[in-house]
Amino acid sequence: MQLPSTCTWLDPPEGAAVRLIDQTRLPGELVLKDCRTVAEVCEAIKTLRVEAGSTDQLREAITHARDELAATRPTAVNLFWALDRMMHVAKQAADLDIPQFRAKLLKEAQAIVTDDLERCRKIGERGAQFIADGANILTHCNAGALATAGYGTALGVIRAAHEQGKRIHVWVDETRPLLQGARLTSWELQQEGIACTVICDSVGASLMGQGKVDCIVVGADRIAANGDTANKIGTYMLAVVAEKHHIPFYVAAPLSTVDFDLASGQEIPIEQRRPEEVCYVAGRLDESICPADVNVYNPAFDVTPHQLISAIITDRGVAQPPFSAALHRLRFLTLA
Amino acid sequence: MQLPSTCTWLDPPEGAAVRLIDQTRLPGELVLKDCRTVAEVCEAIKTLRVEAGSTDQLREAITHARDELAATRPTAVNLFWALDRMMHVAKQAADLDIPQFRAKLLKEAQAIVTDDLERCRKIGERGAQFIADGANILTHCNAGALATAGYGTALGVIRAAHEQGKRIHVWVDETRPLLQGARLTSWELQQEGIACTVICDSVGASLMGQGKVDCIVVGADRIAANGDTANKIGTYMLAVVAEKHHIPFYVAAPLSTVDFDLASGQEIPIEQRRPEEVCYVAGRLDESICPADVNVYNPAFDVTPHQLISAIITDRGVAQPPFSAALHRLRFLTLA
Repeated sequence: MQLPSTCTWLDPPEGAAVRLIDQTRLPGELVLKDCRTVAEVCEAIKTLRVEAGSTDQLREAITHARDELAATRPTAVNLFWALDRMMHVAKQAADLDIPQFRAKLLKEAQAIVTDDLERCRKIGERGAQFIADGANILTHCNAGALATAGYGTALGVIRAAHEQGKRIHVWVDETRPLLQGARLTSWELQQEGIACTVICDSVGASLMGQGKVDCIVVGADRIAANGDTANKIGTYMLAVVAEKHHIPFYVAAPLSTVDFDLASGQEIPIEQRRPEEVCYVAGRLDESICPADVNVYNPAFDVTPHQLISAIITDRGVAQPPFSAALHRLRFLTLA
Repeated sequence: MQLPSTCTWLDPPEGAAVRLIDQTRLPGELVLKDCRTVAEVCEAIKTLRVEAGSTDQLREAITHARDELAATRPTAVNLFWALDRMMHVAKQAADLDIPQFRAKLLKEAQAIVTDDLERCRKIGERGAQFIADGANILTHCNAGALATAGYGTALGVIRAAHEQGKRIHVWVDETRPLLQGARLTSWELQQEGIACTVICDSVGASLMGQGKVDCIVVGADRIAANGDTANKIGTYMLAVVAEKHHIPFYVAAPLSTVDFDLASGQEIPIEQRRPEEVCYVAGRLDESICPADVNVYNPAFDVTPHQLISAIITDRGVAQPPFSAALHRLRFLTLA
């Protein structure tokens, strides 16, 4: 089955909305949701459409929307990168009239999506070399088509290896608290016909100890200039155990995930999320799994130091240690 | 609050049952269940009570019950140890009449419970020295009063430190798939007034990396003669990450948990459990968190090699590396 695009724009006769896959309903149901009615941020976009009387008002509303969107998630850097790209176009288009201004922004948004898909395919191409025929690959969370414009980063590498005819099997960490691995990654792999097995997050270490994991591939939410990588909570645990067993540990992400302003991962802000995600199992339970009033600590990400990473697979090339130099080189690389 | 005893015998006028805490209902409700109506094994015990016409028939039924009970869980060795102790008494009491025979067995069963509680208190006493005032302790699964006759092994150490007035805080791994940490350990600690925080199993590594864990204390289901320790799945992951950060890793268990017949942990059988425990979150969900027909691997335990263990705290003394010699010494130690 071909996945529907993770993000589609509907133009005015259909209602000026962004159409998304409602990932909270997967794998039970594939539901498309037009986000003019979902989130506050979409409400803001809708309001913007209705209320703007001048380009100045529109720019002001866009700046406000930018700030609201930027505040939703502090750790992942691609969000900021895309918002900056949009704001840059908004600045350039300042002298246009409203319809032209809107058309310019929409075009840029669509280009971001197209570019992202293209980048994921390049990550896949460059990364597949690290996956041997017959490999058992372990992945964490969802760095797949559902987390990108399509194809995925870590899952892009896995998809590309599969497309090359390699017989592979993927260990899928369920990824507590929100279960993105159990719900989303296993679903994507199943759609592609790639063999996979879901495991609790505590099982991977035991598999590594038994020689049943050949490599680990994960995505990234933000990478510092030295290669330190913020990714879903639990990634650091896997990297430490992989090092102990001399198992290669790969990070797959577009170069836009590298935040060259940050010298090391210690500067990456880590999003803290609500205890309820843990206690009510991602909103699926009516009764808490914990006693009332018990403390719960629920960080969304952790940071894996660059020393534990074998390679960072980007759309512009593969960075290998030392990462500071390698990432810098990729940044200023002129591609043919 | 004083916990009700985890296991009580009701004598005939009340119905000849074993009264247990129904742990699947915690922490929502504290429900006592008389197990003549719960499990097959209790059904077998009840049948035994009704049908035995001679001591020979009774002994045969007991042997049958022993086999059924032994088949329930392959990994934990204390079950076999207790069954062996009962069978030994049954053999010794072979010449007695039925009422005397039954009384002898009941007395032995009650002695096992009393002994176990006493052993846990000794483990606590001996282990508390390893817990500093102000310590942040991480524990996994439930090795508490609910997993023993009372007081607990790993939680016995924590309880004893708390009783000595040390100000401690416990990081409680939720312990997927059955959530014994989130449901049971946090509940026990809350009852005792010991500060604790529940975390997903993937969070501990990140806390260790940040210097927020001073030691790890876990229980054990079976320990080989060389100190290799089988415990709840996820224990190995913690031990590897603790080693990386030079954090002491303690195993707390009665010496009866050591299986001196096994040279190493490779010989310990690991129980594989049903995928449904993962998919339906310990039976709490109606809808699976995974896509239909996806493979799930659900081992109940893993083995931590002795090289990763700082000390094994037993009722007869603390074993430190090299464990083969230390455990052997404790085995043949004559206590004053």
